[in-house]
Amino acid sequence: MSIPGQFTLHTTDGQARRATLTTAHGEIQTPIFMPVGTQGTVKSLSPLDLEEMNAQIILGNTYHLYLRPGDELVARRGGLHRFANWKRPILTDSGGFQVFSLQSIRKLSEEGVEFRSYIDGSKHFFSPEKAIDIQKNLGSDIMMVLDECVGYGADREYTEKSLEMTTRWAERCRTHHPRGTNGQIMFGIVQGGFFKDLREKSLDQLRGIDFEGFAIGGLSVGESTKEMYDILHHITPLMPADKPRYLMGVGTPLDILEGVAAGVDMFDCVLPSRNARNGTLFTSQGKVNIKRAEFAEDDSPLDPECGCYTCRNFTKAYLRHLYMAKELLSYRLNTYHNLYFYLDMMKQVRASIENGSFAELKRRFEAAYATE
Amino acid sequence: MSIPGQFTLHTTDGQARRATLTTAHGEIQTPIFMPVGTQGTVKSLSPLDLEEMNAQIILGNTYHLYLRPGDELVARRGGLHRFANWKRPILTDSGGFQVFSLQSIRKLSEEGVEFRSYIDGSKHFFSPEKAIDIQKNLGSDIMMVLDECVGYGADREYTEKSLEMTTRWAERCRTHHPRGTNGQIMFGIVQGGFFKDLREKSLDQLRGIDFEGFAIGGLSVGESTKEMYDILHHITPLMPADKPRYLMGVGTPLDILEGVAAGVDMFDCVLPSRNARNGTLFTSQGKVNIKRAEFAEDDSPLDPECGCYTCRNFTKAYLRHLYMAKELLSYRLNTYHNLYFYLDMMKQVRASIENGSFAELKRRFEAAYATE
Repeated sequence: MSIPGQFTLHTTDGQARRATLTTAHGEIQTPIFMPVGTQGTVKSLSPLDLEEMNAQIILGNTYHLYLRPGDELVARRGGLHRFANWKRPILTDSGGFQVFSLQSIRKLSEEGVEFRSYIDGSKHFFSPEKAIDIQKNLGSDIMMVLDECVGYGADREYTEKSLEMTTRWAERCRTHHPRGTNGQIMFGIVQGGFFKDLREKSLDQLRGIDFEGFAIGGLSVGESTKEMYDILHHITPLMPADKPRYLMGVGTPLDILEGVAAGVDMFDCVLPSRNARNGTLFTSQGKVNIKRAEFAEDDSPLDPECGCYTCRNFTKAYLRHLYMAKELLSYRLNTYHNLYFYLDMMKQVRASIENGSFAELKRRFEAAYATE
Repeated sequence: MSIPGQFTLHTTDGQARRATLTTAHGEIQTPIFMPVGTQGTVKSLSPLDLEEMNAQIILGNTYHLYLRPGDELVARRGGLHRFANWKRPILTDSGGFQVFSLQSIRKLSEEGVEFRSYIDGSKHFFSPEKAIDIQKNLGSDIMMVLDECVGYGADREYTEKSLEMTTRWAERCRTHHPRGTNGQIMFGIVQGGFFKDLREKSLDQLRGIDFEGFAIGGLSVGESTKEMYDILHHITPLMPADKPRYLMGVGTPLDILEGVAAGVDMFDCVLPSRNARNGTLFTSQGKVNIKRAEFAEDDSPLDPECGCYTCRNFTKAYLRHLYMAKELLSYRLNTYHNLYFYLDMMKQVRASIENGSFAELKRRFEAAYATE
């Protein structure tokens, strides 16, 4: 019998890994991309849409759900799965990233972080324990520890002190929710900014805590692609091989493939859904900006190689019209396509690792996205 | 073999009629409600959604589609059906109502109406012939003549002059597109404001023109329900019994049932879709304002008697959360429900006419919506 947190490595292709992670709501096949459902909904899509496109797991944002509708209200509804009618696994972040990135932070101390609500300006406090309590109320399958996400450009001294506090917070989270409790598993988060030795230090400290998986935080915060890939390739191979590795908040198709190449198993990012709403669409031929005038009379599908509802039923001319008219259906059809594209890419990634052709697949996407 | 415009009356229950209208894209069973797809999309819904809820015909707005993306562009795409991937019938209005109601009118003359675009302020001109040419480019199954929609409170003299011009415009439309051309049928529009004898005069004049159906225009323009019903019950029974009768832009569930009781066959209105986006939902128990605090922890479905995707899968608590968070899925799930409710009501109406229980059905809805 498989238990939540069980991680089975099936095969590798270079550093790329093909594995299965068990959660309380079923298994997920990795490498995997997790669509972001910030407020208990992947914007514009229904749970049925997500099932159709074979989304195996979605992400919920602790910060947003805590503020609205409130984690206790969600708990009284039986948790986020029942509330949002989503039957597959859910990962929740700790709220840390939003607190730091939305610049709503008021006071940071060893105890935790005080911040203001982006909705009404009211004052709130997240301790590591509180962040876990909220995630327990939400009932996610995978919980993340509270961490400080250091911004790009932070100096070595600040970064080192911060990662050490993040380690102490991680310990408090694990103590507050011991392994094996309630089916909810917990991942630690490696910080350390853009200092390789500090990344190693963070990882070494976190290894001593009994987490079911490890994430890489603090990337995609303003650095160059080269800097990101540098850290990624340095730290990922050092992470425990027998546990899932999650690269948080990343990224473009090429970033994700680079992550897979470095040995990452899990990804999430708002990019495909947010870009969809801005009319930027990912296709097998590269990015398409649907608002461009050249598409006004283009009767071809967005991506001839794509089997999604959008590509099977509508032309670029119609998609452009919907976008220009700011129609609600535009957000929906575009989001459907972009997430389908990402999930289909991951399916190809998994197949390619299985048959040893991942490098070839990666080169194909790099050719399509060479102009980026 | 049935030809577009063929109208077969099956049975009546009082004045209420159960009939079939043939169009170039298939038959529609009446009484019917037509969801409004202003810009070539029923806001937030996919064609698949509309097929699922058994929408038999949708409406497109000539004014909007002429301005964006342009009727000639649509014609080059093979018409609105192909452009929007909608395989069932489409009715287009003439653009007249929007020109007059959006207060973009600049100059009205016997020749036609000059107006400014609501998008960029550019100047445009609709003659009766132009309004038909646009609808021919759109390729709708049912075209409407260009009419002047007189506002509420217009005096007798203005109303009479206006309806006479509307008649002359109607003649020009029919002359421009003779019966039997291209599978597209055409309805005349009875005007005459709130003067019963002027309504009769308008109808008498239009009867002399060979239309496939007749509409009642100029209602739901600010008058009381009593005034609307007064005109409705006066003019509808005088309309040709062997042709479809269409009440334009009306209305609430009770308005529609009143229309059916008066002998109307076809309805359209933005009310269910627009109200949905504002959080006002129609149910078998009456209207529900989903933003009310009382629903924050309500785990029951919106309408326990409804079989739609929204009611089968989500609670009022979740729908309220989506609404409060202004999530795109809120507009979609609410619109789906409201249109499903309207279409299901019409299905019940058709069945009740068939078995002689329409009056009973009407009383049941009146009880549920008594507080309005």
